[in-house]
Amino acid sequence: MINLLEVAKHSSADSCWVVLHGRVYDVTDFLNDHPGGSAAIMALAGKDATEVYDPIHPPGLLEQYLKPEAYLGVLSKTAGQPVDCQLPSACKSPDVSLSSLLNLAEIEQVAKSKLSSKGWAYYSSATDDNITKMNNHLIYQSILLRPRVFIDCRECNLSTEFLGLKIGLPIYISPAAMARLAHPVGEAGIAAACRRFQAMQIISHNASMTPQQIVANSQPGQVFGWQLYCLKDVQQSERRIAEINSIDSVKFICLTLDAPFPGKREIEERQKMEEMRAAGVHGAPQVWGTDASLTWEKTLQWLRRHTSLPVILKGIQTYEDAALAAKYPQVRGIVLSNHGGRALDTVSTPVHVLLEMRWYCPEVFDKLDIIVDGGIMRGTDVVKALALGAKAVGIGRAALYGLAAGGQEGVERTLQILADETATAMRLLGVRRVDQLSLQHINTRGIESQIFDSDTVIRGSSSSSETCSKAKF
Amino acid sequence: MINLLEVAKHSSADSCWVVLHGRVYDVTDFLNDHPGGSAAIMALAGKDATEVYDPIHPPGLLEQYLKPEAYLGVLSKTAGQPVDCQLPSACKSPDVSLSSLLNLAEIEQVAKSKLSSKGWAYYSSATDDNITKMNNHLIYQSILLRPRVFIDCRECNLSTEFLGLKIGLPIYISPAAMARLAHPVGEAGIAAACRRFQAMQIISHNASMTPQQIVANSQPGQVFGWQLYCLKDVQQSERRIAEINSIDSVKFICLTLDAPFPGKREIEERQKMEEMRAAGVHGAPQVWGTDASLTWEKTLQWLRRHTSLPVILKGIQTYEDAALAAKYPQVRGIVLSNHGGRALDTVSTPVHVLLEMRWYCPEVFDKLDIIVDGGIMRGTDVVKALALGAKAVGIGRAALYGLAAGGQEGVERTLQILADETATAMRLLGVRRVDQLSLQHINTRGIESQIFDSDTVIRGSSSSSETCSKAKF
Amino acid sequence: MINLLEVAKHSSADSCWVVLHGRVYDVTDFLNDHPGGSAAIMALAGKDATEVYDPIHPPGLLEQYLKPEAYLGVLSKTAGQPVDCQLPSACKSPDVSLSSLLNLAEIEQVAKSKLSSKGWAYYSSATDDNITKMNNHLIYQSILLRPRVFIDCRECNLSTEFLGLKIGLPIYISPAAMARLAHPVGEAGIAAACRRFQAMQIISHNASMTPQQIVANSQPGQVFGWQLYCLKDVQQSERRIAEINSIDSVKFICLTLDAPFPGKREIEERQKMEEMRAAGVHGAPQVWGTDASLTWEKTLQWLRRHTSLPVILKGIQTYEDAALAAKYPQVRGIVLSNHGGRALDTVSTPVHVLLEMRWYCPEVFDKLDIIVDGGIMRGTDVVKALALGAKAVGIGRAALYGLAAGGQEGVERTLQILADETATAMRLLGVRRVDQLSLQHINTRGIESQIFDSDTVIRGSSSSSETCSKAKF
Amino acid sequence: MINLLEVAKHSSADSCWVVLHGRVYDVTDFLNDHPGGSAAIMALAGKDATEVYDPIHPPGLLEQYLKPEAYLGVLSKTAGQPVDCQLPSACKSPDVSLSSLLNLAEIEQVAKSKLSSKGWAYYSSATDDNITKMNNHLIYQSILLRPRVFIDCRECNLSTEFLGLKIGLPIYISPAAMARLAHPVGEAGIAAACRRFQAMQIISHNASMTPQQIVANSQPGQVFGWQLYCLKDVQQSERRIAEINSIDSVKFICLTLDAPFPGKREIEERQKMEEMRAAGVHGAPQVWGTDASLTWEKTLQWLRRHTSLPVILKGIQTYEDAALAAKYPQVRGIVLSNHGGRALDTVSTPVHVLLEMRWYCPEVFDKLDIIVDGGIMRGTDVVKALALGAKAVGIGRAALYGLAAGGQEGVERTLQILADETATAMRLLGVRRVDQLSLQHINTRGIESQIFDSDTVIRGSSSSSETCSKAKF
Repeated sequence: MINLLEVAKHSSADSCWVVLHGRVYDVTDFLNDHPGGSAAIMALAGKDATEVYDPIHPPGLLEQYLKPEAYLGVLSKTAGQPVDCQLPSACKSPDVSLSSLLNLAEIEQVAKSKLSSKGWAYYSSATDDNITKMNNHLIYQSILLRPRVFIDCRECNLSTEFLGLKIGLPIYISPAAMARLAHPVGEAGIAAACRRFQAMQIISHNASMTPQQIVANSQPGQVFGWQLYCLKDVQQSERRIAEINSIDSVKFICLTLDAPFPGKREIEERQKMEEMRAAGVHGAPQVWGTDASLTWEKTLQWLRRHTSLPVILKGIQTYEDAALAAKYPQVRGIVLSNHGGRALDTVSTPVHVLLEMRWYCPEVFDKLDIIVDGGIMRGTDVVKALALGAKAVGIGRAALYGLAAGGQEGVERTLQILADETATAMRLLGVRRVDQLSLQHINTRGIESQIFDSDTVIRGSSSSSETCSKAKF
Repeated sequence: MINLLEVAKHSSADSCWVVLHGRVYDVTDFLNDHPGGSAAIMALAGKDATEVYDPIHPPGLLEQYLKPEAYLGVLSKTAGQPVDCQLPSACKSPDVSLSSLLNLAEIEQVAKSKLSSKGWAYYSSATDDNITKMNNHLIYQSILLRPRVFIDCRECNLSTEFLGLKIGLPIYISPAAMARLAHPVGEAGIAAACRRFQAMQIISHNASMTPQQIVANSQPGQVFGWQLYCLKDVQQSERRIAEINSIDSVKFICLTLDAPFPGKREIEERQKMEEMRAAGVHGAPQVWGTDASLTWEKTLQWLRRHTSLPVILKGIQTYEDAALAAKYPQVRGIVLSNHGGRALDTVSTPVHVLLEMRWYCPEVFDKLDIIVDGGIMRGTDVVKALALGAKAVGIGRAALYGLAAGGQEGVERTLQILADETATAMRLLGVRRVDQLSLQHINTRGIESQIFDSDTVIRGSSSSSETCSKAKF
Repeated sequence: MINLLEVAKHSSADSCWVVLHGRVYDVTDFLNDHPGGSAAIMALAGKDATEVYDPIHPPGLLEQYLKPEAYLGVLSKTAGQPVDCQLPSACKSPDVSLSSLLNLAEIEQVAKSKLSSKGWAYYSSATDDNITKMNNHLIYQSILLRPRVFIDCRECNLSTEFLGLKIGLPIYISPAAMARLAHPVGEAGIAAACRRFQAMQIISHNASMTPQQIVANSQPGQVFGWQLYCLKDVQQSERRIAEINSIDSVKFICLTLDAPFPGKREIEERQKMEEMRAAGVHGAPQVWGTDASLTWEKTLQWLRRHTSLPVILKGIQTYEDAALAAKYPQVRGIVLSNHGGRALDTVSTPVHVLLEMRWYCPEVFDKLDIIVDGGIMRGTDVVKALALGAKAVGIGRAALYGLAAGGQEGVERTLQILADETATAMRLLGVRRVDQLSLQHINTRGIESQIFDSDTVIRGSSSSSETCSKAKF
Repeated sequence: MINLLEVAKHSSADSCWVVLHGRVYDVTDFLNDHPGGSAAIMALAGKDATEVYDPIHPPGLLEQYLKPEAYLGVLSKTAGQPVDCQLPSACKSPDVSLSSLLNLAEIEQVAKSKLSSKGWAYYSSATDDNITKMNNHLIYQSILLRPRVFIDCRECNLSTEFLGLKIGLPIYISPAAMARLAHPVGEAGIAAACRRFQAMQIISHNASMTPQQIVANSQPGQVFGWQLYCLKDVQQSERRIAEINSIDSVKFICLTLDAPFPGKREIEERQKMEEMRAAGVHGAPQVWGTDASLTWEKTLQWLRRHTSLPVILKGIQTYEDAALAAKYPQVRGIVLSNHGGRALDTVSTPVHVLLEMRWYCPEVFDKLDIIVDGGIMRGTDVVKALALGAKAVGIGRAALYGLAAGGQEGVERTLQILADETATAMRLLGVRRVDQLSLQHINTRGIESQIFDSDTVIRGSSSSSETCSKAKF
């Protein structure tokens, strides 16, 4: 039995103890190995770290990383004053009835009121001036719908396919880290919500639960993908891939390419400064474990050696890279994504890229399954992306906001609203199945003048288009 | 004689009584047959329903639906406490002088202050984020007028023709439901206002008075149309058409196609939640009686068997459907309408469709009489629609706001303002008759870059234009 | 001697007395002849009308219209209570130093604080929603300047020519009515300010002083034009033209075509309602003395018979009419003007028309002298209009605001600011003389997509371009 | 020893004394020779001028201009009341931690709170309505980035070359006057900050320290340019050039062409009025010592006679002048600049000019080194300018704001933030070196419709393009 006063004495890099779930650990040797950097631990040195640690680490992770001798003993309950803990956010505010929330914007408002400032900072932040995050949403409003009338619209079927897998909705869950910041049920709660809709979920590489925990209660046919960030520590990546290979319900690997280097998310940086200031720690550099050296041939070959799962590439942001992806048989799909506006500000939106591809390399739509994420707030957004050729659209923040607003039921409400709005839009457009949505149903003239045009931009200089050219059309 | 305390005991689905106009009815058997759903009745079970029932149901409707034995007796005046009733809105606020209201926006403000929250919610609501409702109005401001000068403009004649019928104004009343929510004189008050201008009125399928009541005081030559929503209950539709066939002043059927399925109107949904909460009722699904299975051949053939009246199709939103409509001789006109932005958000406006038609199928202007509704607030809006080829423009909400602001006189004020503004605009453009307004009087360059262009949008994919193509020009 | 109590008894249409400058008049017989309508007089019946009458009527006008017997006698000073008069606005607020006002927007603010509510309503009002008034100004901000460097810009000469007459500035005073609403020195004060700059002034047809009074203190070479509204009372128009023919410093007639019918100016209407309500008078229709029957041949022939002065046409708003104007040798210039946004809302701005003319009938720039008015707030606005081909730009409201802010000195400050800004802009563009400003100095791409294009707008219908066509280029 | 009461008696143009650094001077004879005008001195006549004089004049300047006999003696410390001085701004507010400032906008906010009102007025002001200043910034947000993925981005090198000189960053310090208004360390503090990054600094002609003082602590290889305003007093200009020729670390002359005449900066004018009013002085005209007669041949020839340093021309604002510059071998580079929006409002931004040059004279990019300034706030702005062909981008106000916020460390923070953001943007775009940034990385469609196009603008009139034409492409 160790009391908190004793623990408090070990708060330096020379001797660093922390309490987790009532147990005291010596993490001195681990400081430099922590993927999140030593500063994050030092901020909690000599304290009970449970409330900060818990929502962002999968249960069981500790045992993987710490040597047995690091465990020092049980915390004495009576000794020392209670840590000034951050209550799990979902317990905080009196419950709003989920059924009274009519759209995703309202769910976001409730989530904001329930999330800790840290959680809100992490989820809502985007890079620089949030221009890309905003554009991701607004671009959909610039596309007009063209409803056809006098068509029997009694039936409306939202089910579709991705990589040959049947899915219940053309709406899936994008990989987004640390769901337990939003609610204790975490990613498993999202999976439970997806079960009801047979919706696809791509599990984040940085989930706050293990993949096994997340898929544990899935039903037959429920589809999962798993997001891979290639780490500098290649062996660790290989161990994780091997683990994924062994999970039946994970059907594909989603290799993430849109954040080889961290973007600048000022809301989040500010939140971190605040925490460090509170803890009396001074600015250690953020450790970033992702490997920035990935390349087409090298990385795909390596991946082929370690998994036979189909691969999709997340973060394609130009028609050139879409066309390149189509040349690798191992690659079965791509996710047009700008990382939710969290990587680089003022980049193209997925809608821009879909239109670029229509112009410069439409054949890619036949070779790859294209999905998109970023900015989806309405069923009309969904049908527009589908009409442009996407097989499905992902929601990231929206799912986490649903989770924060009401756990599993909150995610279900989010999916229900979006599914209902999508079905209503399909009926009013005069289509019955997802694959009937086509370019005749949308008017994109309002954004055409924003689409990259190598002919006019690069007048007088050598063209950069490597893989395919508008000249074909 | 039955007192309210007695009535109050029958407030369940097993025994449901309501008071209407001082009479007590047992509506238990009718609960499941109510076109508006049982929840709407249950919210008033055991209470005096008059104030809620009255403004939205035609007088005499009750007798049609209830069996004689449902009538239980007269309400005892002295017994029980008075129902907490919603006063007819027109009685509420001290009167603003109608002549001091200078434009439609001011009339809308007065109407808002006079309407019940339910009435305002119903009339003002649009779908999702109200983008279409807003665009319907703003698109007119993006068209520039081109006044010709040195032209004798002493005379100015607003009369014109529709389907060969003479009408006094190029402004008509769009079909909009439940006018008695705005004022006790209801649709008949609108008809009386139209009489003064010889303006055309299309009677809503869901009017709060019977067609006979509405046309009762019309004068010779006053033109009415009747809006048809095809119901799932085909016999009921056929009975109503037969009834219309027998009314001389109804000159055509306006078959509505733009709302085969209900849009999502959140203001209205919120209002309903509020009412149900107040009544202690929990969310029954909304019943929607409209038949979603209509198709060109089947429905038009069926209609031809039941009426020889000319047919116009309301809700055309693409040039493709405009061109299709022109192939059916029975169809004499079309209404370009997006249901006032109440069906699907972010769709084209009628102005977009007029321009599409100019590009892709201008011949349709010779075959059909085109009218438009949505967003009209100014006489300059009217002349722009007419210059683009519309025969007349409809006002829906504006008429109801006029009605709410001052009954028949309020609608007259609305029509007067719009007629005066239209005449002033015509004079200052240098035209004397409605049919002299032409494309030389408008500059649509500002919106041309928004017009659907199958050539540029659908590069690299098979074109969807079924009926006519821009390539002709 | 008549006292006010006596006067007050004569406040009906049967016997209507008013006091003007301390004299009592019986205006009963004149009620129906008043060009401004009888209601305007009835609002002052039985009262001292001096404060309302004075600023808007030329001195001496009364004698022209009233018969000698209408004069009843002198008002007794002691009798009756003092009229609740509206103080001349220029006396009202403590003086801001004119030299501290740095731009026209600041002068407008001071003017607003000094003007009576009636004066502000009259000057600031525009039609409908003020969209044209706003666009007149904003369109200039959408044109970019292209400064050329390494050019000797020591000299800068603002003088130029119009109709072969030398003028000191490319900035002139547009005809705007009733300057004495702003300041007792009225139009003569404006003329005195122009003298200092040798600036041109077009005297309003509805000036609050006679032309003779306005030009009285002009210096040799100072240029005046006179605005003609053709009246329904042709003889009156002919008398006024004859009067103008006899004034040496008036060098041309500016025939106004952009307001054959009154626009709807709601600020002004509201102000009038307010006044009538205060006076207990009820809404008489506004009398409009302007002849709405003018046509090219008839009116120009009539005018040729009555004056040999050069004629310019004010209110040209399309290239078609500009080209028509160029066919009449008697017409020496045109004013591109939309009446300051006071006639018809949402019309083209003069900048739009200049660009239209560049596209469709550039030869007109060689045949006619083109001037423009509306929206000028900065020297950069001035140089843009000149670079597009205008010979000079007019200020209307800005001159009246200067007058309201500080009488003659206020107008001088207004002209000085605008002249200084214009000279600075010319130097920084690398030009020394007004006629060196050319299309190379401006970039109009930002507004080109707004310019009327008959080729694309009128696809599929017969073109309306009567006089010249873009096909030439 | 002279006391302040004695000094105070000499406050007229006939006898004008001022105190500077504790010494009393008679500046009567100098009044008319002061390059800043006599009014500036008269505002301080009879007073201690140190606080106003010091931040805007290089140390030692006084000795250059005043005759020895002007020095009257030492100020007696005890006599007279203390002057109501303006404290050096950097001392004023409690320090915000520089490391907590995450972007340039935040640094600007801190600078605003620390600067004197005079300093803020001088730095922040732009001409007229600040439209150009605003556009300089916003135009970058209209360009979209196109990140390429699956590229090894571990390395990122920000170093580059200008005129063959190695520089550590593609970000340099633009010449901006009077840095000691911001902080006592002045331009030397900026130089010290640049040393850490090996960043280039162009010393302002109107620096508040001498060039020697500024470069004193530079390290080998640190690059400076010197800004030349040609003065009316040619000999003075020649003396200053000779001085510059003798300073090794100044590698080129930056001849400024974008302000031959002062623009209208109202914030600054207002500040001056305020000061004059406080000092009881009345509006003397501002003296402007710059020669407005510069021309290509004459001025460049003169300059060649006085220096063999390479010359760059600052203030090129059209492709025509860029092409002209390329014809003079002596000219080695150009700065596309609109003087930070301080000269003429509503002109093109440097981005517009870069695109113009791409269209009309791309060969100039091979002949000259192009740099740009104005509006840079983010690393994404930097990479966009570089991708369009700029060799480097300058910051003017941003450097002064950094200086005001924290002296040398403040400028270092500013450069660090911008360098970090630039490197992050390069990595996420998939480039490793500055010269790899190219047109494929940006989408400029959103602004292409704003680029000057002589073909469409100047229809029907003679083209002005003197030196090269789009027809080549």
